[in-house]
Amino acid sequence: MSTGEFTRWLHERARAHRFQVDRIPFAHLDGWAFDPATGNLGHRSGRFFTVEGLHVTVGTEPSAQWQQPIIVQPEVGILGILAKEFDGVLHFLMQAKMEPGNPGLIQLSPTVQATRSNYTKVHQGADVRYIEFFTDRSRGRVLVDVLQSEHGAWFSLKSNRNMIVEVAEEVPVGDDFCWLTLGQIGELLRRDNTVNMDARTVLACAPAAFVEPEAMHSDTDLLSWFTSERARQDVRVERIPLARVEGWRRAEESIDHAQGRYFRVMAVSVQAGSREVTSWTQPLFEPRGRGVVGFVVRRFHGVPHILVSARVEAGFRDTIELGPTVQFTPENYAHLPAAGRPPFQDLTTDIAPHRLRYDVLHSEEGGRFFDAVSRYLIVEADESQAPQQPPTGFLWVTPGQLNSLVRHGHYLNVQGRTLLSAINTGAAVL
Amino acid sequence: MSTGEFTRWLHERARAHRFQVDRIPFAHLDGWAFDPATGNLGHRSGRFFTVEGLHVTVGTEPSAQWQQPIIVQPEVGILGILAKEFDGVLHFLMQAKMEPGNPGLIQLSPTVQATRSNYTKVHQGADVRYIEFFTDRSRGRVLVDVLQSEHGAWFSLKSNRNMIVEVAEEVPVGDDFCWLTLGQIGELLRRDNTVNMDARTVLACAPAAFVEPEAMHSDTDLLSWFTSERARQDVRVERIPLARVEGWRRAEESIDHAQGRYFRVMAVSVQAGSREVTSWTQPLFEPRGRGVVGFVVRRFHGVPHILVSARVEAGFRDTIELGPTVQFTPENYAHLPAAGRPPFQDLTTDIAPHRLRYDVLHSEEGGRFFDAVSRYLIVEADESQAPQQPPTGFLWVTPGQLNSLVRHGHYLNVQGRTLLSAINTGAAVL
Repeated sequence: MSTGEFTRWLHERARAHRFQVDRIPFAHLDGWAFDPATGNLGHRSGRFFTVEGLHVTVGTEPSAQWQQPIIVQPEVGILGILAKEFDGVLHFLMQAKMEPGNPGLIQLSPTVQATRSNYTKVHQGADVRYIEFFTDRSRGRVLVDVLQSEHGAWFSLKSNRNMIVEVAEEVPVGDDFCWLTLGQIGELLRRDNTVNMDARTVLACAPAAFVEPEAMHSDTDLLSWFTSERARQDVRVERIPLARVEGWRRAEESIDHAQGRYFRVMAVSVQAGSREVTSWTQPLFEPRGRGVVGFVVRRFHGVPHILVSARVEAGFRDTIELGPTVQFTPENYAHLPAAGRPPFQDLTTDIAPHRLRYDVLHSEEGGRFFDAVSRYLIVEADESQAPQQPPTGFLWVTPGQLNSLVRHGHYLNVQGRTLLSAINTGAAVL
Repeated sequence: MSTGEFTRWLHERARAHRFQVDRIPFAHLDGWAFDPATGNLGHRSGRFFTVEGLHVTVGTEPSAQWQQPIIVQPEVGILGILAKEFDGVLHFLMQAKMEPGNPGLIQLSPTVQATRSNYTKVHQGADVRYIEFFTDRSRGRVLVDVLQSEHGAWFSLKSNRNMIVEVAEEVPVGDDFCWLTLGQIGELLRRDNTVNMDARTVLACAPAAFVEPEAMHSDTDLLSWFTSERARQDVRVERIPLARVEGWRRAEESIDHAQGRYFRVMAVSVQAGSREVTSWTQPLFEPRGRGVVGFVVRRFHGVPHILVSARVEAGFRDTIELGPTVQFTPENYAHLPAAGRPPFQDLTTDIAPHRLRYDVLHSEEGGRFFDAVSRYLIVEADESQAPQQPPTGFLWVTPGQLNSLVRHGHYLNVQGRTLLSAINTGAAVL
């Protein structure tokens, strides 16, 4: 399938189904309710996810403290891509999948994207297609299988299993599925809001060969820096009832931050033909501004390096993970003086075209987040903009080092993995 | 120093100090008290650690549930060994260190063993000697630096930084310190209660070269199995006030399990000359029986393999870590029928001498655990005893695979690391 054909196919898949997503007041949610005692928002089955409260304390004397709503979904889902060689070239079975929070609704998704509730059929829907290749070890050869965290600012302790399984056998291809090469997916990763987050995080974990004769820091030094950053952070997180979260206001249609920052909790009704069930209602998180997520890159001795940051996010399992150089929402910082804004954020505005390696809009998981779009950037910098000796909390690493770290969980956050997927697939060339 | 000289030196260090450890009632604790509201046991400074309660639920329908006291110590300490070449051979600077819970009190310890309270001097004691080599990156070359978990049955989310730093400069050697080679430490690891847990876990992380032409499972398959084991476990852990823990009874001198199983919480007073402060009181956990911890090993195609288990421990950050084949305390299972005992435990009794590769008593961290001794075993088995296709939750891996996994945190539990340290140092030959 050429990428022109792909575009037609994706439009046709969208036409083949009837999709309608509408905002609704919480009172119109079906099966979801606020617990009278805690105020937590949950499903009557006890599954899917709940919205609860979090009290976060970072650092000691003086410490930063805040409270916020958070999505709690302890179960581990599977994000799986089936791979198969055709004419000696590995192809990936991708799905045109609707998620209610996606801009445009349908995006290119992994073969399988299933919460445990999903594939154990709590919602009484249809079977999850192709799931057996990921749950039955004998059906293929595992290329990737790793638990990775998701958005630590919005999820408490969430991780999903990122898998790629290669099969030799013939696989029947459903109407909403198509085989694409890594290069083709890379082309699509240069389009706005086309490849979904679940596909991006899995592709970030795909083994890739980078020719890197020399990294600024050895792998041992990189791991040591990571360990010291994780150890020096003091993050205390306490789950609290949603009703007790201070600084947030619950109304009929949403729960909002008192100053209108960060995100709101809202609800939608969904009518769809291609999902496992044909209609449902659910809560979503809706960010209040467009995010900016960027890797700042440089070459040292001819080898591309990425400036990663050690990011504290309240929902991480262990204080920090590596993240992009810049990851923030400008609106949330608009009330602060320049000194209160994140380091290197100025490199993401007024970017000279010759410095721009990647500039694409991507949305986050549309099953949990409504219109959560960020501008993903890769920007080349020089010594005056991004010094070889960066400030505390930043380190220069190579794409190959990141690619080998993501064989293991909880090293690189989900935004960093979106950018790494663009590099792995050739969508961005450093 | 020969190992004969080492024995004389260790005895001399013990004589050079005056040590006295006595059980005391909780009421005689100085600076420690039970919080009137929660019943949690803590220090008035708010530092060191607290004893709180845990409610644990494992699995769904039917789930196993229990409550227990647990040590909460969120801060990350440093367990650091200084290394230096003499005549081309790497030596490690080891310390004769007293901990109140150690059988024999003094054991061979890392160069530095410091909680953050320790080296930031919450207890107003002396400086932690040699700490600057581990906190100042410019003082040496890092060989190992990784956050590793400690006992998940007794600690909530505890991890420490395991470090080895090689220096070129002359290092003055204090009275309680001596340089030993890895081989010499290996000889000492064949003696009962001589090398402490903190030294063992750091030595487990030391890079070692294993000649392994062929592993039963590729690294990718091993990681995939680990991911599937972590994902399939459903472990929910809730911190609760110690006063609300059911099935445990608090008396004047101890908090005990109603049936006298597992462990008790007790308190000691300590008089010592070689610690940073000369006398103190503190709570400790005292196990009620002697543990049995064993690797079952076999050769496949001539390559030694270890049968590891995927262990759920309530205090782990993420459901499971790899652990020994067998890790249990027989007394805690004495009331159960044979089918209720852990798999492979029968291989740790009546062991034919030619199957025994390692059989040494080691105690756990003497700063938190009183007389917590386990019999550490490495036992060779055959197909009838430990089949090539093991039951669910077990996998055959090579020592080299374990050694490369422990470059990263939270893969191998602390009991597994004690056994790996015996293999790394040549104390056990498979």
